[in-house]
Amino acid sequence: MTGSSPGFRVWEMRDVTQARGAASHIAIGPGGEFDLVRQMLSVWGDTASGIGDDAAVLDLADGERLVVSTDTAVHDVHFRRAWVSAEEIGFRSTMAALSDLAAMAARPVGVLVALTLPRDWSDEMESLARGIGDAARLSSVPIVGGDLTSGRELSLTITVLGGAARPLSRASARAGDRIYVTGILGGPAAAVRDWESGAQPSTWCRTRFARPAARIREALWLAERGAMAMIDISDGLGSELQHIARASRVRLRVDLDRVPRGPGVEWRDTVCGGDELELLFTAAEGLDVNAFARIFGVPVTEIGDVRPAAEGEVVAERSGVRVDLESGHDHFSR
Amino acid sequence: MTGSSPGFRVWEMRDVTQARGAASHIAIGPGGEFDLVRQMLSVWGDTASGIGDDAAVLDLADGERLVVSTDTAVHDVHFRRAWVSAEEIGFRSTMAALSDLAAMAARPVGVLVALTLPRDWSDEMESLARGIGDAARLSSVPIVGGDLTSGRELSLTITVLGGAARPLSRASARAGDRIYVTGILGGPAAAVRDWESGAQPSTWCRTRFARPAARIREALWLAERGAMAMIDISDGLGSELQHIARASRVRLRVDLDRVPRGPGVEWRDTVCGGDELELLFTAAEGLDVNAFARIFGVPVTEIGDVRPAAEGEVVAERSGVRVDLESGHDHFSR
Repeated sequence: MTGSSPGFRVWEMRDVTQARGAASHIAIGPGGEFDLVRQMLSVWGDTASGIGDDAAVLDLADGERLVVSTDTAVHDVHFRRAWVSAEEIGFRSTMAALSDLAAMAARPVGVLVALTLPRDWSDEMESLARGIGDAARLSSVPIVGGDLTSGRELSLTITVLGGAARPLSRASARAGDRIYVTGILGGPAAAVRDWESGAQPSTWCRTRFARPAARIREALWLAERGAMAMIDISDGLGSELQHIARASRVRLRVDLDRVPRGPGVEWRDTVCGGDELELLFTAAEGLDVNAFARIFGVPVTEIGDVRPAAEGEVVAERSGVRVDLESGHDHFSR
Repeated sequence: MTGSSPGFRVWEMRDVTQARGAASHIAIGPGGEFDLVRQMLSVWGDTASGIGDDAAVLDLADGERLVVSTDTAVHDVHFRRAWVSAEEIGFRSTMAALSDLAAMAARPVGVLVALTLPRDWSDEMESLARGIGDAARLSSVPIVGGDLTSGRELSLTITVLGGAARPLSRASARAGDRIYVTGILGGPAAAVRDWESGAQPSTWCRTRFARPAARIREALWLAERGAMAMIDISDGLGSELQHIARASRVRLRVDLDRVPRGPGVEWRDTVCGGDELELLFTAAEGLDVNAFARIFGVPVTEIGDVRPAAEGEVVAERSGVRVDLESGHDHFSR
């Protein structure tokens, strides 16, 4: 396996805009790697487009800017095999990457899948591919390219490309605006807590971890209605609040009692738990939260307000008592 | 390390077009991961731009299409620690990814770096970053985002974004055209052969493996002068010829004696050796090979011609005897 081949690139693609739907890939050469690629393409069907050249070619709509992000999920760092199925690993990794486009209020236009596949996972490749394909299909975005390599550790790096006329930064919170959060928080953190203590999480918590949904349509709707600073809750609400406060140089005042909490979820799960893929954003007072809930079947909740400040700061209270927010996940400082 | 944090995303970026040169990143929160990110940013200096949001925002020039590719390099699969320095690993991984833009005749506009860093490599992070930064700087492309994660296996997934008014596909070879190759081949394969037999490769061969250059300016020049089908030689000349033949549905006739071979290189190294980052392309007869050599200090050599065929096929000869081309690297079929 090692060394004799200094490098290989397995598959790449082109011209998704023309091929979309037609799935007219370029003919791929012979060999075992290419057989695996063909297997993935067959799982993906029309969701994969124009695979087979050195790179993918895409077009944005007139007036759109390119928005791009990359996200890696590694076995035993971001998930454990005992917790989730291969299909769920593929699904949530792809949704987590797409969530970064939602956080910018960008419309997804393409997904690239870089997969490092150890031998003991090779039987699961089709399941992984199915999960990746489902997440892309549900988000109406084609898989336009990627890379398949062997290795000792299962790893997925998903790169997402989008277009946005007005990308939403985390640095745009304005004093006077309100702070909102979509969805009901704490499920993924509660699920991990249960798994780690040997318990089975509730179906609700487990699903929140294993089959999260990127809030893409929700983000576009909110951007059209005046959302300003936006971020997705991938590192935990506390951490994301600090990101917005620092980037925007404002004080964020949050009432943690107002954060919607799922069944069986402790309040700390809503503050420190990552992988929510819900949106935290600021907007002027008076956002039509009822219309949002009606259209998307998910609540949006006002949890605080934005004040002027010289330096970024977060002031969080619970039952009127100030809470010291932890800064979310941090592997390297442990 | 494992499990307690279901996921984390460390750094992302925005608005490179505005920040270019000014390196005006968004303020990044506290924590050990972010310290590592700051360390990388300090190595990169002005080469990194607008880091810190959920995603990077980029603009293409008017009339350009988006060209994108992703490439993974894994320790002990694509390189060994004893062969190359951490700086060289960063350099060649980035150049290998950029080479896919060259193969499409695209102008690079941004690089995303997804790095999985095991603890026993953490002292080498700055060297890795320096190599990545050097490759980006030499290619005049900003590093606009990425992801940093822990893991057991060093892995770099480099995603490259480019713009091209007329991207060159591998499917555009036309009967009657000639086949050309840039540069002098076989160095990387000869270096790997030496390392594996316990010998030290020559400086020339070693440098070809450790410090390859993506032929970006060369590709743009060739595209302006009528190059049609183009591919970079990452899997070996034999394999790439087959890719073009199949994708274009033509017969490629190649005289292997005409392939320029480096010092200490066997002819097989020029056919089966990957990681060349040289360009294989077709163009009408009469390409000004002297002007190319004068401008870029690198030869471009005609090695065969394109014939009509019902199915893609490669006919390779050496000293007038037909050679059965191996299909290049293939990890999964071993």
